[in-house]
Amino acid sequence: MSDFFSVISTTKGVRSGILKFRDGTEVTTPTFMPVGTRGAVKSMSPELVKSTGSGILLANTYHLHLSPGGEVVKAGGGTSKWMNWHGPTLTDSGGFQVYTLGKIRKISEEGVKFRNPVNGDTIFLSPEKSIQIQHDLGADIIMAFDDVVDLHNERHRQREAMERTHRWLKRCVTEHERLLKLNFPEGDGPKLFGIVQGGLSKELRMESLEFIQSQAVDGIAIGGLSVGETREEMHEMLEFLADKFDDSPRPHYLMGVGHPVDMRKAIECGIDMFDCVLPTRNARHSSVWITGDEQISLKAERFKLSNEPIEVGCDCYSCVNNFTKSWFRAQYKANEPLAGALAGVHNLRYLQRLCEGYRSK
Amino acid sequence: MSDFFSVISTTKGVRSGILKFRDGTEVTTPTFMPVGTRGAVKSMSPELVKSTGSGILLANTYHLHLSPGGEVVKAGGGTSKWMNWHGPTLTDSGGFQVYTLGKIRKISEEGVKFRNPVNGDTIFLSPEKSIQIQHDLGADIIMAFDDVVDLHNERHRQREAMERTHRWLKRCVTEHERLLKLNFPEGDGPKLFGIVQGGLSKELRMESLEFIQSQAVDGIAIGGLSVGETREEMHEMLEFLADKFDDSPRPHYLMGVGHPVDMRKAIECGIDMFDCVLPTRNARHSSVWITGDEQISLKAERFKLSNEPIEVGCDCYSCVNNFTKSWFRAQYKANEPLAGALAGVHNLRYLQRLCEGYRSK
Repeated sequence: MSDFFSVISTTKGVRSGILKFRDGTEVTTPTFMPVGTRGAVKSMSPELVKSTGSGILLANTYHLHLSPGGEVVKAGGGTSKWMNWHGPTLTDSGGFQVYTLGKIRKISEEGVKFRNPVNGDTIFLSPEKSIQIQHDLGADIIMAFDDVVDLHNERHRQREAMERTHRWLKRCVTEHERLLKLNFPEGDGPKLFGIVQGGLSKELRMESLEFIQSQAVDGIAIGGLSVGETREEMHEMLEFLADKFDDSPRPHYLMGVGHPVDMRKAIECGIDMFDCVLPTRNARHSSVWITGDEQISLKAERFKLSNEPIEVGCDCYSCVNNFTKSWFRAQYKANEPLAGALAGVHNLRYLQRLCEGYRSK
Repeated sequence: MSDFFSVISTTKGVRSGILKFRDGTEVTTPTFMPVGTRGAVKSMSPELVKSTGSGILLANTYHLHLSPGGEVVKAGGGTSKWMNWHGPTLTDSGGFQVYTLGKIRKISEEGVKFRNPVNGDTIFLSPEKSIQIQHDLGADIIMAFDDVVDLHNERHRQREAMERTHRWLKRCVTEHERLLKLNFPEGDGPKLFGIVQGGLSKELRMESLEFIQSQAVDGIAIGGLSVGETREEMHEMLEFLADKFDDSPRPHYLMGVGHPVDMRKAIECGIDMFDCVLPTRNARHSSVWITGDEQISLKAERFKLSNEPIEVGCDCYSCVNNFTKSWFRAQYKANEPLAGALAGVHNLRYLQRLCEGYRSK
């Protein structure tokens, strides 16, 4: 835990740090983690993803568990090797995906039962099960299994969900430590992050942050935001939490956030890590960020004859090689997946440049 | 014309040659040209395409004319630059695509009228129009506009179509020479290939070959094959034509062929160039070639836990980087386009390795 993360400098609440992984890789923070849901960042070769300055890749436990299954990824050498990423990876716990299933899940103290949307099989995920699958998947950072509430329809069970998240974290830690002892006697096992919940209640968030920080976890994640609240509500919560983090050298990870405006706010509130499908999903729909967080559509008629790259001065693969807006527009109109992939490279690089601007080295 | 192509050696009918392009690029033959229909080889970055050993890219005049239009590609610096290929390109004439429109086209001596399948506009293509669009698109090799017949439903008009193809070639040559004089006074204009037609009639094919070879064209293409005839019929025609080619240093291009079995036969009958969507389309449907032209599906259950590359010993990007069959299978099941792209890289490399095996340097 002690070597895993160090804060190099803190300036006006902004932390500049380094994550050190078991294979010797170092990733400087703040950093954004692209999402390779099922073993690939959609349409992008690992080289292209690396070219954006991305250091850590996120893979989804829920999706990989459903297909092809943790045992397949394990047999392939774990997420990093199987995906041909050959760098640090993080797996989420499945808690968020289970939450998005809505009515077709059944939550109990033991865990969550739901139907596999693909084949109808009944699937059961619990804190122990999630940790076991994540150990199989073999990522460098794994996440606690949490109970996420819907801010609109389930506000009444915010406290209940938070308290369950806390009880589940204890079970996660126990299972994680059992597996670490069993499989990593030399201490080179994965790192476990706990997840702060509490919806939009400052009281609950405070209580949750204190609890999570009191546990034997290697990182502090903020969950349950970016789930339908307004930008103001999210920013207010980030500001509230900013000076409540303790001094332990643990990274702060804001889950599911990938809009540059939110990332700036979060970084200024002491957040070190992010993940989101937004930059790559937006890109598939032709939407890219350019200077000043302006969002433009590469399908726009005005780009028909534009021989300029997406953003003049950008150092991403797509801009440096001058894939022009004229070319992008034509490819989007022709439903060519390469357009989304190369615009995604730009968006990822845009977010990494944003992060780099806050780093001291 | 004299510098454009040279045959280095001929062994048992197999020609090993070099194409020299106006930018100084040399492409050794036999060679296969990947198809970048609308300005991209589906889902593949130009680097990945280049990594397969491909030297020339084909783009489709018909598709680019419909969208975004030749003027857009011209404003972007021509196919090679606009597509970010930065190497030699070839455009077809639209003749074959117009043929596939079937009943919705109307052929007259002047040209072909058809409805734009996208917006219903009436579009007219003629030999002159096709050459003009191809000059706008700016490829290094352009193709004559031909009248392709359906071997099953239009066999009765084989002679008519062949003779029209010949008359149209004369109009293509005239228009091409007019544009060359106008825009390329220094002689660095595109090369024009004529297309041999004649269906499955040896008599007509012979007549057509002699006519095409008598014209001022820079290359001899065989069209109207790989359109529904049996493999035996195609091979018989290739064998028939093999010793009928004249000695002029002009490349022989078999259009629309990309199956390794047919390519071997064709190369042994003196063919130098090929194009086809087969290797990339097959790959999108999980089908790849391995040693001995065996075709396997990467979706097969038996590959669930296979940590081997597509083909052990293959030097393509995907095999060298060991994207495993286990990974491919899972990505196909998840509809991840990267699987098709990387399997396409393997298939293209498979065909280029096949070609390289026949080259003397």
